[in-house]
Amino acid sequence: MRSPTRPQDRPAHHVPERQRRVEHDLLQTVLASFRDTPDPRLKVLMESLVRHLHAFIRNVRLTEDEWQRAIDFLTAAGHITDERRQEFVLLSDVLGASMQMINVNHEAEHNATEATVVGPFFVEGAPEISLGGDMTGGAPGEPCWVEGTVTDTTGNPVPGARIDVWEADEDGHYDVQYGPHHTAGRAHLYTDAQGRYAFWGLTPTPYPIPHDGPVGELLARTGRSPLRASHLHFMATAPRHRTVITHIFVEGDELLTQDAVFGVKASLIKKFPRQEPGTPTPDGRALPAMTWTRVRFDIVLRPTPATGPAEKNEE
Amino acid sequence: MRSPTRPQDRPAHHVPERQRRVEHDLLQTVLASFRDTPDPRLKVLMESLVRHLHAFIRNVRLTEDEWQRAIDFLTAAGHITDERRQEFVLLSDVLGASMQMINVNHEAEHNATEATVVGPFFVEGAPEISLGGDMTGGAPGEPCWVEGTVTDTTGNPVPGARIDVWEADEDGHYDVQYGPHHTAGRAHLYTDAQGRYAFWGLTPTPYPIPHDGPVGELLARTGRSPLRASHLHFMATAPRHRTVITHIFVEGDELLTQDAVFGVKASLIKKFPRQEPGTPTPDGRALPAMTWTRVRFDIVLRPTPATGPAEKNEE
Repeated sequence: MRSPTRPQDRPAHHVPERQRRVEHDLLQTVLASFRDTPDPRLKVLMESLVRHLHAFIRNVRLTEDEWQRAIDFLTAAGHITDERRQEFVLLSDVLGASMQMINVNHEAEHNATEATVVGPFFVEGAPEISLGGDMTGGAPGEPCWVEGTVTDTTGNPVPGARIDVWEADEDGHYDVQYGPHHTAGRAHLYTDAQGRYAFWGLTPTPYPIPHDGPVGELLARTGRSPLRASHLHFMATAPRHRTVITHIFVEGDELLTQDAVFGVKASLIKKFPRQEPGTPTPDGRALPAMTWTRVRFDIVLRPTPATGPAEKNEE
Repeated sequence: MRSPTRPQDRPAHHVPERQRRVEHDLLQTVLASFRDTPDPRLKVLMESLVRHLHAFIRNVRLTEDEWQRAIDFLTAAGHITDERRQEFVLLSDVLGASMQMINVNHEAEHNATEATVVGPFFVEGAPEISLGGDMTGGAPGEPCWVEGTVTDTTGNPVPGARIDVWEADEDGHYDVQYGPHHTAGRAHLYTDAQGRYAFWGLTPTPYPIPHDGPVGELLARTGRSPLRASHLHFMATAPRHRTVITHIFVEGDELLTQDAVFGVKASLIKKFPRQEPGTPTPDGRALPAMTWTRVRFDIVLRPTPATGPAEKNEE
């Protein structure tokens, strides 16, 4: 039983000194309660979390009614979450928290390819295709020729690098969204001796994140779209190099500036020039009478420091 | 699929300028996404939430593994929550967020009685008792005579004020924890023409908050006790006065400085002097050969501003 009170949107500097002391003293008491935390890292995390949580409550003068709505929101998010739906990850995504966490852990360094969010649709064990092969598995959409190189930050080619790629079909669905036994729009391949790769995929199209739950309601109430900018997922892995998980985005896509999960980085926006029907394909493949696109994405991996014979790939 | 990385507990001022700009730009993009929020209060809340969430992630340099553990924690909290168990409220409680929210909404003013957390055990419709009556309903424990007055902040008695009281038995359980049809250790009564009240209850004893879920594990991993300091709950309501929901605590209780939910305030700690068996009782009640305690709690209510005939109790 909590009685609703009216919002008190009063800047913190208007809080009377006596009241400010009460609030400050409580914060200190809560911080002190973590003094015996055995794991020093957990202690740092809890203290910082408590500082920010209390600052939020004090700064906005959170009402009892708003507190109750937050409890109800988290409860609804917990109840919709199951093996196939993760509403807390969606929440982290739409608040930009996932992307900020990726930023913090994959600092932009030199000319290395930048990382972005993993998303929920990566699946281990996607089929291998040969260079120039087709990763669509029959998924519907406009064909897209994807090619590039994998080099290290000093420009040396990385032969034998593994590239995983995955994407939605033209209806905006990944294979796993059709059921557990369907594989399409995902594959892996390896760079050749010169670090080159190429494959046929689909021109990326926009699609919404799941928005029939509390996160979708939050987006609606804040005037935001659930759509993601069109993209194609990549993961590039090579021994003695740092793995990069990223996307490429389509230049000119109007959703680039309003991606629901804030995954877009300028360095990842690529030209996908559209080819008229009948335009000769790079590998001589005969396509039906339809348009197709092509894109170039050169991946740059950061070498990991050599630490002796026991060293292995850091991730 | 997220790869664990090592903690990077690096103070923010050691983050390279280029990287700091990347993180700052992302924050600005996320903030801007709320620009079209129709409800101005929701906009304020979301912007502040995002600022603090991103500051937390950046300050602690949150790793992917830690992010995943946070997702798993929220998921487990959601799955243990049902009609009778609210793990998100517990989480708010043990982080001091509930108490800070109470502080913000019930500022200490003049000599008015201070508020504390409501807790999950209030039940509407508790039985009425007369002045000097027994609220225990047969619950086991040491008898406690509770008396006091209800006055306003200028010292005038408040006759006819409603006082709800509820508490755990000597085993640390509230009636509702025994099942839905059991009522004990809760009642309401009204002050007399001089604003006086008195009743028989139980000497409060400590008890743990539910700690068999993720919040309990958090307490264990941070070296904290799940115990609440011994207390007796009060809610005092009167027309034209602001309702106060509070507890009184037992002076000398060693848990006063480590209450699991940070509900203790100095002004709410009361003496509960223990009386030898056979000591005459204030109302002449004959007790078995046992000790009993007594406590005085004078409640001071803040009048609400008169706003004309339509005015009603603010809460």
